[in-house]
Amino acid sequence: MTYIAVIGHGVVGSGVVDVLDQNREGIAHRAKEEIAVKYILDLRDFNNLPYAKKFIKDFSVIENDPEVSIVVECIGGINPAFDYIRRSLLAGKSVVTSNKELVAEKGQELLQLAKERNLNFLFEASVGGGIPIIRPLSQCMAANEVLEIAGILNGTTNFILTKMIKDNMSFDDALKLAQELGDAERDPSSDVDGHDACRKICILASLAFERHVYPNQVHTEGIRNITLQDVAYANAWGGSIKLLGTVKKCADNRLDMCVAPMLVSYDNQLSRVDDVFNAILCRGNATGDVIFYGRGAGKLPTASAVVADVIDCVKHVNARKYLYWGTGDNWLVRDPDLQQTALYIRLSGRSAYELRAAVDMAYGKDLMINADGSENEAAFITPVMGMSDHNRILDSLREKGITVENALRVFGDQ
Amino acid sequence: MTYIAVIGHGVVGSGVVDVLDQNREGIAHRAKEEIAVKYILDLRDFNNLPYAKKFIKDFSVIENDPEVSIVVECIGGINPAFDYIRRSLLAGKSVVTSNKELVAEKGQELLQLAKERNLNFLFEASVGGGIPIIRPLSQCMAANEVLEIAGILNGTTNFILTKMIKDNMSFDDALKLAQELGDAERDPSSDVDGHDACRKICILASLAFERHVYPNQVHTEGIRNITLQDVAYANAWGGSIKLLGTVKKCADNRLDMCVAPMLVSYDNQLSRVDDVFNAILCRGNATGDVIFYGRGAGKLPTASAVVADVIDCVKHVNARKYLYWGTGDNWLVRDPDLQQTALYIRLSGRSAYELRAAVDMAYGKDLMINADGSENEAAFITPVMGMSDHNRILDSLREKGITVENALRVFGDQ
Repeated sequence: MTYIAVIGHGVVGSGVVDVLDQNREGIAHRAKEEIAVKYILDLRDFNNLPYAKKFIKDFSVIENDPEVSIVVECIGGINPAFDYIRRSLLAGKSVVTSNKELVAEKGQELLQLAKERNLNFLFEASVGGGIPIIRPLSQCMAANEVLEIAGILNGTTNFILTKMIKDNMSFDDALKLAQELGDAERDPSSDVDGHDACRKICILASLAFERHVYPNQVHTEGIRNITLQDVAYANAWGGSIKLLGTVKKCADNRLDMCVAPMLVSYDNQLSRVDDVFNAILCRGNATGDVIFYGRGAGKLPTASAVVADVIDCVKHVNARKYLYWGTGDNWLVRDPDLQQTALYIRLSGRSAYELRAAVDMAYGKDLMINADGSENEAAFITPVMGMSDHNRILDSLREKGITVENALRVFGDQ
Repeated sequence: MTYIAVIGHGVVGSGVVDVLDQNREGIAHRAKEEIAVKYILDLRDFNNLPYAKKFIKDFSVIENDPEVSIVVECIGGINPAFDYIRRSLLAGKSVVTSNKELVAEKGQELLQLAKERNLNFLFEASVGGGIPIIRPLSQCMAANEVLEIAGILNGTTNFILTKMIKDNMSFDDALKLAQELGDAERDPSSDVDGHDACRKICILASLAFERHVYPNQVHTEGIRNITLQDVAYANAWGGSIKLLGTVKKCADNRLDMCVAPMLVSYDNQLSRVDDVFNAILCRGNATGDVIFYGRGAGKLPTASAVVADVIDCVKHVNARKYLYWGTGDNWLVRDPDLQQTALYIRLSGRSAYELRAAVDMAYGKDLMINADGSENEAAFITPVMGMSDHNRILDSLREKGITVENALRVFGDQ
């Protein structure tokens, strides 16, 4: 019998208890041992639950109980989660977490501590919810050099964009609907401004390239400025707008990283990932492109990923899984101005004819998107060039009295 | 330093040597140890290769060399692969294979032997080439009860169907093109008649449901009788025809299994998997649907999956990975006549009006597909019912002088 403690009884934490209960027999069979929840730490009272007597409010009970060999952290955020996990590892307990904010900010520190103590620190649920991604990336792709990762990593924004694309709903209406359905928080900033996706691409980049990347190193844009016009132009071009987190290894071993809404061609599988679903594309030098697709959030999917990690801990007591990455630094992530990309630009303030002439002159050539825009608007796909060159050209267009309504990266081979 | 032996220097075997060489540094880093190929067993001579001196022709050299701790089998087929693997395990060596035929026929026996000797027998590359699927299914989904698996498991047939769907090419022309491109064998039977896909769904089913399923237990149809008419009707209905391998757990714990071309709605991600790509959908009771997508074959993708298994063996010397399933029996797989499904049927020999009336009467109701068929042809989607009932009804239509041109399952929730 292995005893575990669950910290936090919110959506994921209660899901962990549910999954362990519902699939008890199969889990015990696969772990070769029964797994029992000994404590649940939560400041709230849950007197009506059948397992009410497991609730405690004092973390030191867990810390000091040698019978607890695995601690599952599901409270989210940095504090007090970081302190609890650190103390758990120091007390000789392996830790499983679903906390992407914590892993993105403090992953290296905690992996280092786990390594020193020969313990596991696992976080499959921190990216992609129920989608297996951490383990495949670290194990199945182990014979590859990873060249690039690109993912639809946030279900809320993908739901909103899907409603805009498929139902012609405005951003505001789609956000409101997501909030009504419980798919978006009342304060949606962490989703719609790209911070959640940023944390997840940081975790994937750290794992694939084995050095810690911090969220504040990554250029991050949200989807608030996407309009139905942009969606229509993207469709006329032959793709959809998706919020992507991307990381690519450059020739000098530095990383180009970005979180931003991008145009994705219908030829690419990622363009067809709709609603709250997530998908992560990994390009290896031997496998080529591999894509992992599924529900990126939700109580049971996320909880099942947590429990899979718990099973792995049970099977690897005293045998570390070798999940690890080194410290990061400012050199690792390149200045986003150096990134090479084609841009989608939507311009206004002149006739379509004049806009075309101006883009022609500024870029040397252009690909105008034919769509039912207004008289005084036009959209273009530019050639591939560095972001600093794009910015210089866009400024020169502004100087001519042209309004740059939107400028979005085009995802693809550059 | 870990020494391995590679049996067979064909496409996959030579790819394994290449991947180990190309990604040497990263692999050694991840395995925490250098991996060196000590022997390559092949009956042919490869005198011009820089590593020509590693070639041997006598398996007993490998068997009797205690320095070799891992044997990689890449010759395919049952004999002599089975004998080599059995003797390797008996000699205390872990084994990695890409041989789906062998795993599908002899997997249980070899897993049992590996278990008794506390060795690993791993076969990530046997299904889905470079797509991580064996490990995610056995580890990441470990907290789930798997309800269903459905996969596009054969790249050759998917390439042929894609050419038929997208380029309006006939089956014969598409097959010829695949052969010219090297994507199909000169004797294409194992691909186009569904046997290859059958072996792979057997492996996935055995792994997910933990009892050996043998290929001869699974109703298997190929794609030779798919015509461009069928493709057009499927498109008019709103989907594409894909060769799927499927397994579903029934209420009585038996399995409904099938390999056959099926209509897949455009709403389902599997309908968009084109060319030589494979994709595997796993439905767990907690995760919901998860899909794994990538190149299902090819030298480097497959070899990279083999090498990932080798790395795992190196990291788990004296610590088995717990891949295992029990023996099978005739009870496990249900009579295919009991399977519940809707059918797509294409009928001829009467006017479309008369065909409709006949289907209406036979099925109680019908969904006719409107497409540019000939005068004396029509296609329908039937209600969901058991295959034995379908067969009875189709026979009754035949008795009325109607020709059943084709009858294909409709994939989906039944």
